[in-house]
Amino acid sequence: MKRVKLIVAYDGTKYHGWQIQQNGITVEEILNRRLSELLDEDIAVIGASRTDAGVHALANVAVFDTNTKIPSDKICYALNQRLPEDIVIQHSSKVADDFHPRRCDSIKTYEYRILNSPHPRPLVRLYTHFVYYPLDIEAMRIGAAYLIGTHNFKSFCTVGAQVKDTIRTIYSIDVERNEDIVVIRVTGNGFLYNMVRIIAGTLLKVGHHLKQPDQVKTMLEAEDRSMAGPTAPPEGLTMIGIEFL
Amino acid sequence: MKRVKLIVAYDGTKYHGWQIQQNGITVEEILNRRLSELLDEDIAVIGASRTDAGVHALANVAVFDTNTKIPSDKICYALNQRLPEDIVIQHSSKVADDFHPRRCDSIKTYEYRILNSPHPRPLVRLYTHFVYYPLDIEAMRIGAAYLIGTHNFKSFCTVGAQVKDTIRTIYSIDVERNEDIVVIRVTGNGFLYNMVRIIAGTLLKVGHHLKQPDQVKTMLEAEDRSMAGPTAPPEGLTMIGIEFL
Repeated sequence: MKRVKLIVAYDGTKYHGWQIQQNGITVEEILNRRLSELLDEDIAVIGASRTDAGVHALANVAVFDTNTKIPSDKICYALNQRLPEDIVIQHSSKVADDFHPRRCDSIKTYEYRILNSPHPRPLVRLYTHFVYYPLDIEAMRIGAAYLIGTHNFKSFCTVGAQVKDTIRTIYSIDVERNEDIVVIRVTGNGFLYNMVRIIAGTLLKVGHHLKQPDQVKTMLEAEDRSMAGPTAPPEGLTMIGIEFL
Repeated sequence: MKRVKLIVAYDGTKYHGWQIQQNGITVEEILNRRLSELLDEDIAVIGASRTDAGVHALANVAVFDTNTKIPSDKICYALNQRLPEDIVIQHSSKVADDFHPRRCDSIKTYEYRILNSPHPRPLVRLYTHFVYYPLDIEAMRIGAAYLIGTHNFKSFCTVGAQVKDTIRTIYSIDVERNEDIVVIRVTGNGFLYNMVRIIAGTLLKVGHHLKQPDQVKTMLEAEDRSMAGPTAPPEGLTMIGIEFL
């Protein structure tokens, strides 16, 4: 028996998120099914980031246990032969038997991408949120700065999420414009349900001058979901990577 | 009666190219249908670049004549309401009644995009050609330089194309790598059928060290399609823009 780690990239457009559920096909389900076929064992992966329906990943992480004799670093090639083109394993390797991607300390990075232009653009439509009103990037940066550090992010978590501890640490939030693509890049030690999308929705209000940058501080301190901005749509969000400490 | 110019962006993935044909749905057909509905006239657009099946565009150009009273610069907004999300008008404006996008001198720019990495990446799969072998960018640049200038590009044109004059001028070919994305950017006064894709297929052979850079000169001088490299697949190609002189 060995434990294998996969780095998984996917286009979330067609999937009902990572985690297995009744309503539709998920990334976890596809991986379990194809790995079980490939290795002729019942495989159940454990994912690091349980992304929502429509959210993408450049490098999510999953682990599973197997008795296979296929070398761990070759599993990615064999598995990719069986996966659809919108889910591709980037790397596979053996890890310690007790490595658990959600139980060890990690630094996660997400990007929320916005097309800020007068008209939508077909070639980025699946991977950006379209916003036609001009965004004030400097205001968004000032607003974002209030979120950096260790805070109670209850205002930035969808109500009903079954988590008791809503304290998290954000190490950095960078807002960059490259021509008409605006990227909000958030790095932290963990994220609550919908947290990055609520941060994006809030910073969009600030960038649109519907909220002042310093109102982000008030929202955070309120510890009340109704105070922060809306949850921005999923297509703009991509799980960029995870560093395990 | 006035003549209106459209700047048209599209994701070519689902289309059988620009030009109306029997086999499947095309961009020209969609534009004609939706414009005819919108303006309540029989509209037939004339396209500048008749891109192939699967090829994309950031800014192709089309013109049409109309009696509508809708201001020319507002037609894009009204038309976009009726278009699918993979075809979006970026701009509309009135032009001279005798403006014809294929009969006047112009400078066209295309980009051929390659993902050069060990594994495919889902988020770029629709808009890049995947190549796993490492590409020698410097060799590709040296090979590309032989194509710059006014030449008979018969070796770089699909046989059977009904064009007599195969002399064209390429102003520049830039080969750039940004992490694992390689972009071949070609600017010229006109392109033969499949010319950019054959240039890309040829430079891929050079980048893979299956051809020497100076063999590109031999291929060009042969004026024989069988001498040049293969036609690279359509998904890597995007029509970037046209400047009318």
